[in-house]
Amino acid sequence: MPGIVTLTTDFGTRDPYAAQLRGVLLTSCEGVRVHDLTHEIAPQDVLEGALFLAAAVPRFPPGTVHLAVVDPGVGTSRRAIAASLGGQHVVCPDNGLLTLLARRAPIEEVRSLERASLRREPVSPTFHGRDLFAPAAAFLACGGALEQLGPPVEDPIELPLPRPRSEGARLLGEVLHVDRFGNAITNLARSDIEAIAAGPVRVEAGGRRLALARTYGDVAEGEPLALIGSADLLELAVRNGNAAATLGLDRGSEVVVAAG
Amino acid sequence: MPGIVTLTTDFGTRDPYAAQLRGVLLTSCEGVRVHDLTHEIAPQDVLEGALFLAAAVPRFPPGTVHLAVVDPGVGTSRRAIAASLGGQHVVCPDNGLLTLLARRAPIEEVRSLERASLRREPVSPTFHGRDLFAPAAAFLACGGALEQLGPPVEDPIELPLPRPRSEGARLLGEVLHVDRFGNAITNLARSDIEAIAAGPVRVEAGGRRLALARTYGDVAEGEPLALIGSADLLELAVRNGNAAATLGLDRGSEVVVAAG
Amino acid sequence: MPGIVTLTTDFGTRDPYAAQLRGVLLTSCEGVRVHDLTHEIAPQDVLEGALFLAAAVPRFPPGTVHLAVVDPGVGTSRRAIAASLGGQHVVCPDNGLLTLLARRAPIEEVRSLERASLRREPVSPTFHGRDLFAPAAAFLACGGALEQLGPPVEDPIELPLPRPRSEGARLLGEVLHVDRFGNAITNLARSDIEAIAAGPVRVEAGGRRLALARTYGDVAEGEPLALIGSADLLELAVRNGNAAATLGLDRGSEVVVAAG
Repeated sequence: MPGIVTLTTDFGTRDPYAAQLRGVLLTSCEGVRVHDLTHEIAPQDVLEGALFLAAAVPRFPPGTVHLAVVDPGVGTSRRAIAASLGGQHVVCPDNGLLTLLARRAPIEEVRSLERASLRREPVSPTFHGRDLFAPAAAFLACGGALEQLGPPVEDPIELPLPRPRSEGARLLGEVLHVDRFGNAITNLARSDIEAIAAGPVRVEAGGRRLALARTYGDVAEGEPLALIGSADLLELAVRNGNAAATLGLDRGSEVVVAAG
Repeated sequence: MPGIVTLTTDFGTRDPYAAQLRGVLLTSCEGVRVHDLTHEIAPQDVLEGALFLAAAVPRFPPGTVHLAVVDPGVGTSRRAIAASLGGQHVVCPDNGLLTLLARRAPIEEVRSLERASLRREPVSPTFHGRDLFAPAAAFLACGGALEQLGPPVEDPIELPLPRPRSEGARLLGEVLHVDRFGNAITNLARSDIEAIAAGPVRVEAGGRRLALARTYGDVAEGEPLALIGSADLLELAVRNGNAAATLGLDRGSEVVVAAG
Repeated sequence: MPGIVTLTTDFGTRDPYAAQLRGVLLTSCEGVRVHDLTHEIAPQDVLEGALFLAAAVPRFPPGTVHLAVVDPGVGTSRRAIAASLGGQHVVCPDNGLLTLLARRAPIEEVRSLERASLRREPVSPTFHGRDLFAPAAAFLACGGALEQLGPPVEDPIELPLPRPRSEGARLLGEVLHVDRFGNAITNLARSDIEAIAAGPVRVEAGGRRLALARTYGDVAEGEPLALIGSADLLELAVRNGNAAATLGLDRGSEVVVAAG
C-alpha cells in the first residue's frame, strides 16, 4: 500500500503552491495519503520550520515521508536532500531544517537529490518543491529506496542555534518561539534545568520572577507561570491569558533559571 | 476498515499542535482517515467551537469520530469526555462544546476518559489533546466501544447561552457570530420567528429596519437584508458586502424581530 | 475505487462552511478522498480563484473532480455548472472561474446542474456549495457521468481579463496577483515576451528598471529582479525580500517589457 506523505511549508494556502505539491504527489504515487501539517511557517523562517519538525515528526508512524519546504535558498546552489531518521524519511532543502529533529532522532543517512529521472522537467528555478522535492517524496512513499535518490551527503547543514549558557549558578536561555496562545517557548530543556538544581528553581523573564509550576491550574486566572511544556522545554505562560503580551516577550528575549 | 476522525481545534496550524494530534491518530489506528475541519476557532472560544460543531457534525456519515479540542481548562480538573449522538461520536473536554450540537442530535451516552491504558504516558499536563483525547478518538475509530473508555457521565456541562426573549409582540435576540463574509448570525431560529408571526416580519439591527428576504438576490447590490441562513438561524447580511461593518454589529449586538 | 475531490473556496476555515462540504462529500460518496487545496481565496474574488485553479488543476491526475466555490452570485440567477477538461472535472458556479484554466486545458463539455435528484433538499438559497455543488462533485467522484448532471451549456461565462497590449516595441502588462512572499505575478506570459524580442529584454515596474534574470541567485540579497515564474508568467521579485513592498506594486500596477 502506498505510504503517507506529510507537508510542512511556508507557502500559505492562498497561493497555489501547496496545492501543486499535492497534485504532483497524487500523480506520481497513486493512492498516496497526503497530510497537511502546516503551510503557515513564517515565510523563509528556517528556525520555525525546524522547531515544527522536531515537535511533529516523532509522533508519526514508521515509514512516513515528511516533505518540508522552507527554502530561502531556492535558486541558489544549496543542496536538496532526503534523510532517514527514526524509521522515517524527511525530504527538504539542505539548510538546517533537520537540526532540532536530529537531536531527538539521530540522522541515519542523507542523500542528495541528484537522480535526473526523478525530476519534473523543466525544473522551475524558483519552485523546487514542486519539481524536485515532491517527486522524490512520492518515490519514497511508493516504495523507492533512499539510496536511489543520489549520492550520500556527509555534512548536512546545521542551523546555528542559541545554546543555553551557565553563569555561576544561573542558567541563561532565550525565547525561541511564541505560539498562538502567547506561550513563550524557550531553548531550556527539562534536563538543562535538572542539571543545575535538584530542588525548586525560580525563573526570571520579562522583568518578573515566576514560580516553576506543573500546569496552568496551579496559579490563579490571569497569573503568569513557568512550566515544562509539551515539547519538554521551559515555557512561560499566563493562565487563560497571553504570556508574550503580558511579559513583553518575543523571540530572543532572555530567560534566567536559578536554584531557589 | 478504520473509520474517519475529524479535527476541530483552536490550535492554528503555525504551531505543531494539530500536527501532533494527526501523528498520534495515524500511529494509534493504522489506516484511519483524518479530516481537518478547522484549527481556526478563536483561541479558547468555547462558544465559537460549539457553533462550529453544531453546523458541521450533522453533515458527516454515521460512525464518524469528531475530535474537538478547545480547552481553556486544560491543566485544571475539568473532565475529558466522549459522547455518542446521532450515530456519531465526539471526543472533547467537558466544557459545553456539545451544547448546541445536542439540540440537533440529542446526546445518547457520555463517558469520562479514565481508562489508563488509553493514555499516552507521560501525559503532558498542558496538552491533553495529544495524550488523552487523540488516543481515545483513535480507539473509537479502530472499532473500540464507547463504554470501554470510562465510567458514564450523567451531567455534561452546558454552556450558558443567550436565549431569545419575548417582549410583548417582539422577539429579542442577539448576534452569536460574525463570519468571514461579515454575515452576522443570530440566536433566533426559523421556528422562533414563525412562533411570533405567521405573516411578514420586520427585523431591527444596528439601528436599521430590514426586510426579511429569502436570499441576497432579493435586494440591490450593497443593500442590507435579513434572511434565514444555511444553519436555519436569522442572519444579517449585505449583498456582496459586509453586514457587520455596515451595520456595526458584533457578537452580542441586539436584534429585534416583530410582526409587520 | 471512489475518486479524488479537491476543494477550492473563499470560505476560510474559521466558519463551518468548508467542513460542511466535506461532510456532504463523505456522506454522498463513501470512501471518496477529499483534498483541501485552499479555503483562503480572498472573499468573492473570482479572479484570484481563477488564477489558483489555472496553476493547481493541471498538476492533478486524470479523473480528479475539483469543487470550486467562489460565488458572489449565490442567491441570484447565475448558473451552476460542471465542466470536463484535460481528463478532469470542475464543479463551480458559472462566473468565470474556469477562464484561465481553459487557456491551458480547453474545455471539452459543460453541463448545467439541473438534475433535481442530485440536490440536497431543501436547498439553502445562500449555500449552494453544500446543497448543489458538493452533491454533484460526489456523484462524479463515485463514477457518475457528466451528461447526467443536466443540459449542455454552450456559453460559459468568461472573466473579462486584462490582456497584454503592444505599444510600438514595448509590451504593456499588469500585476494580477501578489503572493505570500511579496512576488508580483503579471499577465505577461513567457511566449508574449519571446514574441517581442529574441534577445535580452528590460522590465520596468514600480519606477525601477530591472534585469530579466533566471532565478533569485542571479542577483544580490535584497535586490529586485524580474523572472519567469513557476506558472510561466513574468514575476517581479526581491531575493529574500518582498517585491510588492519594495517596488510599491499591487494588483493592477503597470509593468512594461521592451527589447534591450
